[in-house]
Amino acid sequence: MPQHRLKLCEEHFLAWVERRVARTIESLEMFAPDDRLLVAVSGGKDSLTLWEILLRLGYRADGLYINLGIGHESYSDVSQARAEAFAAMHPEATLHVVNVAQRYGRSIPDLAHGRGHRVCSRCGMVKRYIMNRSAREGGYAVLATGHNLDDEAAQLLQNNLYWVRGYLQRQAPVLPEAAGGGLARKAKPLCLLYERESAAYALVRGIDYVQQECPYARRATSIFHKHILNDLERRSPGTKLQYYLGFVRARQDGFIVPEELEAGSGVCQRCGQPTTANEICAFCRMLETEGLL
Amino acid sequence: MPQHRLKLCEEHFLAWVERRVARTIESLEMFAPDDRLLVAVSGGKDSLTLWEILLRLGYRADGLYINLGIGHESYSDVSQARAEAFAAMHPEATLHVVNVAQRYGRSIPDLAHGRGHRVCSRCGMVKRYIMNRSAREGGYAVLATGHNLDDEAAQLLQNNLYWVRGYLQRQAPVLPEAAGGGLARKAKPLCLLYERESAAYALVRGIDYVQQECPYARRATSIFHKHILNDLERRSPGTKLQYYLGFVRARQDGFIVPEELEAGSGVCQRCGQPTTANEICAFCRMLETEGLL
Repeated sequence: MPQHRLKLCEEHFLAWVERRVARTIESLEMFAPDDRLLVAVSGGKDSLTLWEILLRLGYRADGLYINLGIGHESYSDVSQARAEAFAAMHPEATLHVVNVAQRYGRSIPDLAHGRGHRVCSRCGMVKRYIMNRSAREGGYAVLATGHNLDDEAAQLLQNNLYWVRGYLQRQAPVLPEAAGGGLARKAKPLCLLYERESAAYALVRGIDYVQQECPYARRATSIFHKHILNDLERRSPGTKLQYYLGFVRARQDGFIVPEELEAGSGVCQRCGQPTTANEICAFCRMLETEGLL
Repeated sequence: MPQHRLKLCEEHFLAWVERRVARTIESLEMFAPDDRLLVAVSGGKDSLTLWEILLRLGYRADGLYINLGIGHESYSDVSQARAEAFAAMHPEATLHVVNVAQRYGRSIPDLAHGRGHRVCSRCGMVKRYIMNRSAREGGYAVLATGHNLDDEAAQLLQNNLYWVRGYLQRQAPVLPEAAGGGLARKAKPLCLLYERESAAYALVRGIDYVQQECPYARRATSIFHKHILNDLERRSPGTKLQYYLGFVRARQDGFIVPEELEAGSGVCQRCGQPTTANEICAFCRMLETEGLL
């Protein structure tokens, strides 16, 4: 790991990763030891690694798998099987499963009506809705997601190159509960872990994860920005970490002017979830338009 | 020019560049029509393009060439000849020449004692000193430099990747006079002009400039960052401009918290120029150490 000037054997690598995540959680004040956590699980390496580490660190962490109905009995169902297999080996934890088509009447691809560019935006909105609602209704203190350093740095670069101020203000390793409790506290405990480190951890621990990418994940821009950051990292190991951590600190110190979160100034008349300006939230508006409500 | 969705013939390209620079000067409030300007001239495309445009726009702009004594009768002397040839064709303007070795006793390479990595830092310090002193003593209102968009965006990326807060706060298209008048007002009128546009302007105008790079200009990092930005620009034309301009606006709006410039809290006991913390400025300290004072 040239970024840390460190070479470790398998045993010490696993201990190192776990301690690193533990310290990230503490130093960024993500959550307390007895908080009940809901981990958003996709079946991929990052989210299963996160769940594994949280359980090993002694946290009470349940999982949430959202079946998006992508790939007709391949991608989404295979992913669900991996998440369930993982859960079966951890009897101390519960896996909640929400099947979008079964619960709301239509899969993500069907909600996008074959318009490819619409899949990712609808998918993001639906997932955010279900994740938040599941966390709130399940009484969880925190929603934890498996975003790693490469994800966060690429997202930051995207927001930073175009100085998208709102996104720069809201991109944080931990977001407090908001909207009078309507929006769950959110945390990204792997945000200081390189993608390679997360993948190596899953490999060494023998975690059986989905290797397949989402077939819609042609999100070329974020992949392109990951390549750019990899070029910078190769030339100067540690760049990604310094870039992201420097941002987090600048944000904390008020070097980037913070702004009150707007979200949740209202409550949806249909579902009771927080909504920004409208009487009906974006999710319910979609269901209405689609004739599903 | 895909970044502007524009294709122009030579005549209209020249007019477009000149109007763009004129608007940059006005919109960023760089200087007034009757301010006396001192243009830092290296003999390269950017500085001669800048001088040409300022004269065409009707500004009273003199030039300053600093002979650094680099390249033993090739680089520095050839550059000086180009600057002088340009000045000879513009009788309305004066070219001041400062020869570092003649005035202060030693050339830049000799001041670095053959230690290559030291050349660029000493050169930068010496040039900043001479430029500021020449502007102040010559009674010029503004010191103008030929930094183009590619230079500024690469510098920004460098400061931004590592969140060097002081540099981010001080990187601006125009810096006001400071230190009680000891530090000249500084402006970069080409800061919104792509390097390609500046080079094309010089070419079409038939300006005879030095094509050779400074032999010490192995500043690999800034060149590497220019490559990175070129990759981003190729994928999404306009990125460099949006990145830099977005930063300038964020800085103006206080989105990046501004801080008082520290420079010039004192005056050098030797030369009377502004200095930060010490009684003797960095330039005079160097001369002293070298036994030249």
